[in-house]
Amino acid sequence: MGQAEKQQMVDRLRDLQAKTPDVEASAVVSVDGLTIAAALPTNVEEDRVAAMSAAMLSLGERIAGELGRGFLDEVYIHGDSGYVLLTSIGEDAVLTVLARKQAKLGLVFLEMRRAAEELQKML
Amino acid sequence: MGQAEKQQMVDRLRDLQAKTPDVEASAVVSVDGLTIAAALPTNVEEDRVAAMSAAMLSLGERIAGELGRGFLDEVYIHGDSGYVLLTSIGEDAVLTVLARKQAKLGLVFLEMRRAAEELQKML
Repeated sequence: MGQAEKQQMVDRLRDLQAKTPDVEASAVVSVDGLTIAAALPTNVEEDRVAAMSAAMLSLGERIAGELGRGFLDEVYIHGDSGYVLLTSIGEDAVLTVLARKQAKLGLVFLEMRRAAEELQKML
Repeated sequence: MGQAEKQQMVDRLRDLQAKTPDVEASAVVSVDGLTIAAALPTNVEEDRVAAMSAAMLSLGERIAGELGRGFLDEVYIHGDSGYVLLTSIGEDAVLTVLARKQAKLGLVFLEMRRAAEELQKML
C-alpha cells in the first residue's frame, strides 16, 4: 500500500471522528496485529491498540464459532469509562474505535459500518 | 454453595429466558471458568460456555484497562447468526447469554443487568 492510499484511509478515519464526536480514536488493524492506518490522540499508543484489536478479533471469532453465532461481525467492550468497538473490514482487517462513555452506540456503529465498507475498498 | 442456592440461581436464569425469548441459553460462570449455574439447551455444552466466558472476561478486562476504558461492565460479540453477551456479576463471576440474531439488544441487556444484580446476592 502506498503513502497516498494510507493517507486516504487516515482521512476517512478522521471523517468518522468528525461525524461522531464521541469517537476519540480509530484505527484499521490487520488480523495479525499490524496498524494499517490510524487516527489516534497522542495519549493512545498505536501498538497497544493494534495488539488489543488483533487479540480481540481472534478470540471473538473463536467464541462466535464455538458458541454457534456464525462469523464475527462486531465486538463491543463496555467499561465504566467508555467503549472499545470493533467491526470487521472484510476478512483480513478490523476497524477499532475508542468511544466516550456517553456515546450513542447505535449512531457510532452505523457510522463504523459505513466507514468499514469504504475502507475495505481502499485496502 | 448448597443445592438450594444453586437451584435458585437456575430458576433466576430460566426467568430471564422466559422474559426475553430471544435468549436461547444463559449461565453464571466464575472468573476461573467454572460453571456456577446454567440454563442451557441440550445442544450447548456447559464446559464450552464456561471456558469461552472466562477467556472473554479476562481479555475484556485487559483491553478495557489497556485502552483507558476503566473497569469492564459488559461485552457483546455479534456474529451473523446471533450474539454472545456478557455482564459482570460483582468481581468474581459473569452472566453469559446466547441470543438469537433478531434479539432486541437493549431489552436483553436491561434484563441481564437486573438478573445480574439479583444473582450477585445469591452468590
